[in-house]
Amino acid sequence: MTRKILVLPGDGIGPEITAQASRILAACQARGLDVEVEEALVGGSAYDEHGEPLPAVTLDKAKVADAILLGAVGGPKWDKLEDLAKRPEKGLLGLRKNLGLFANLRPAITYPQLASASSLKPELVAGLDIMIVRELTGGIYFGQPRGIEVRDGQRVGFNTYVYSESEIERIGRVAFELAQKRGKRLCSVDKANVLEVTILWREVMERLAPEYPDVELSHMYVDNAAMQLVRAPKQFDVMVTGNMFGDILSDAAAMLTGSIGMLPSASLNESGQGMYEPCHGSAPDIAGKNVANPLATILSVAMMLRYSLAEPDLAQRIEDAVGKVLDDGLRTADIASEGTRTVSTVEMGDAVLAAF
Amino acid sequence: MTRKILVLPGDGIGPEITAQASRILAACQARGLDVEVEEALVGGSAYDEHGEPLPAVTLDKAKVADAILLGAVGGPKWDKLEDLAKRPEKGLLGLRKNLGLFANLRPAITYPQLASASSLKPELVAGLDIMIVRELTGGIYFGQPRGIEVRDGQRVGFNTYVYSESEIERIGRVAFELAQKRGKRLCSVDKANVLEVTILWREVMERLAPEYPDVELSHMYVDNAAMQLVRAPKQFDVMVTGNMFGDILSDAAAMLTGSIGMLPSASLNESGQGMYEPCHGSAPDIAGKNVANPLATILSVAMMLRYSLAEPDLAQRIEDAVGKVLDDGLRTADIASEGTRTVSTVEMGDAVLAAF
Ligand SMILES: CC(C)[C@H](C(=O)O)[C@@H](O)C(=O)O
Ligand SMILES: CC(C)[C@H](C(=O)O)[C@@H](O)C(=O)O
Repeated sequence: MTRKILVLPGDGIGPEITAQASRILAACQARGLDVEVEEALVGGSAYDEHGEPLPAVTLDKAKVADAILLGAVGGPKWDKLEDLAKRPEKGLLGLRKNLGLFANLRPAITYPQLASASSLKPELVAGLDIMIVRELTGGIYFGQPRGIEVRDGQRVGFNTYVYSESEIERIGRVAFELAQKRGKRLCSVDKANVLEVTILWREVMERLAPEYPDVELSHMYVDNAAMQLVRAPKQFDVMVTGNMFGDILSDAAAMLTGSIGMLPSASLNESGQGMYEPCHGSAPDIAGKNVANPLATILSVAMMLRYSLAEPDLAQRIEDAVGKVLDDGLRTADIASEGTRTVSTVEMGDAVLAAF
Repeated sequence: MTRKILVLPGDGIGPEITAQASRILAACQARGLDVEVEEALVGGSAYDEHGEPLPAVTLDKAKVADAILLGAVGGPKWDKLEDLAKRPEKGLLGLRKNLGLFANLRPAITYPQLASASSLKPELVAGLDIMIVRELTGGIYFGQPRGIEVRDGQRVGFNTYVYSESEIERIGRVAFELAQKRGKRLCSVDKANVLEVTILWREVMERLAPEYPDVELSHMYVDNAAMQLVRAPKQFDVMVTGNMFGDILSDAAAMLTGSIGMLPSASLNESGQGMYEPCHGSAPDIAGKNVANPLATILSVAMMLRYSLAEPDLAQRIEDAVGKVLDDGLRTADIASEGTRTVSTVEMGDAVLAAF
């Protein structure tokens, strides 16, 4: 059966990097991958066209897709929109929520060819391989009540950080299962010394632990986790945390690998449908200049093939092609270093295709 | 008039490190500083003695003190306490709230003698000097409603992230004024693309900006701030943010300096009363072993002399003495490196006293 892939280029560098990833997808089709590829608008570009960051036509296409490839959303052009519901980010959040993409997998890996690009000392990041599991459809991102209102004569802003046992259990199981397939160590990050919601979080993780006797569960406060990531990131195997802490920690972890231009991510729902996107943002400052790094998006295609399309061989081919291009010394500007050749977005796409 | 100082050793390494700081305080008295020094219990040690992490007798003494020196609180011994209100951390949070210590100043400085101790490449941290201003008596730490309750047949945990305009304005002014005295750049950190409470935060910062025309105000999302701290920390001068983001970012920033054993902090209220404490925690694993680094606590005394007691000369003497001891190559185990001499907690105190 022909499977459906929806490509959502988004804003900023989104269109350029997804264009290169789409070429790889086409090459997979040429090698026999039976998929139908469609495109749609999301984020600021959707707002400009339809007045909504997540138009119904896009959401409808997303719902029937087996997998979604997203570029990136957001930019200063839309930051002044008074109505939060119209901002590009709401397109992304709406997709996550409407499709139930509760499990966000964010690998933080240092590519051997790029260890020197890290701001950390090379010995601290060489061989680094962490998987951060972030809950993506709950927590303070979606909690009610929320808003800004007048109380006692002045405005007050408020949001609600909330998790139910079943939400915690669901993401906990994803993390335990991943840990079983990896280094068998799971660190759950919370702020259980201050926040009740994370006391419940910790309790549920503890309750699940006996079902995964081969996994060693530990707990860490979020402030300490931020420190430990900076101090000695290799101590971690799998980390699991809520939406907001996961946002912060996964970005810090991605940055310290030195390979942030290379890191894909997956957001999965209970039926295995997934959205795949680079860890980095829409980089409006370099948009349209043909300098952005398309590799994280290309590697997101590989992750999609592995997790949603059950095509591990094609996934491996893409990953090997990227490895070869790096071995050959090709680099986009963000990861350039002495002795390497700086290439454009399109040239990088060319090179990966040639190596594929 | 004799001023009152309250020393709260707390838990873990707290008693050892405050003991060394108290010796420095005594030396200041010998040089004419007119203060009365008292001690009291807080945290786990207070719970063990009085069944409360912040006994009334401690709070009463704290209220009349001109300044408080705190060691650290918390430890695994009390982590299993079901009732959050009894945990050591509540002693600290209770002090902050009851004394109205809303302005937490957390310098992240790299001591030239310790640049190589950072996990970041030396060129990224040499000369680093950031001041993080964290709101300390509001936000999600104290927001209501909060708790764990049964809804639709399952337990749900919830906390409330809330700020009023006046709370934001008050901490904003502290940050703008500090920026005026420093590099004149203020970066306000929020998550205004997702959280309404931080939309209000950003708006209030913008409203204040014209009153400080010599300060350049910028805004950054918290996930990006975490990345930028790892990538290029020297881009920052003063950062201002809420209680929870400040907890995470200030710890990450402190760690990446490589000087975390050295960093003091101040928590001030509107009348200039202050609580001073090291940035690091209670380190239960090394408690009682005479190996903890007392320098952050000693430097907290210097900060106290400067901010609450208007004794900048004595403050400078302490800072100079610490600098000299480092120049002489003395290090506690946490900051030891090749070619330096590892000393104990007490020996470090001896050395600072001798240089004072
Ligand atoms: C764009 C933004 C809403 C989003 C988030 O905060 O989740 C992004 O930072 C991410 O991590 O995917
Ligand atoms: C001990 C804990 C409650 C406290 C906090 O989270 O504020 C600590 O981490 C700090 O930063 O002072």
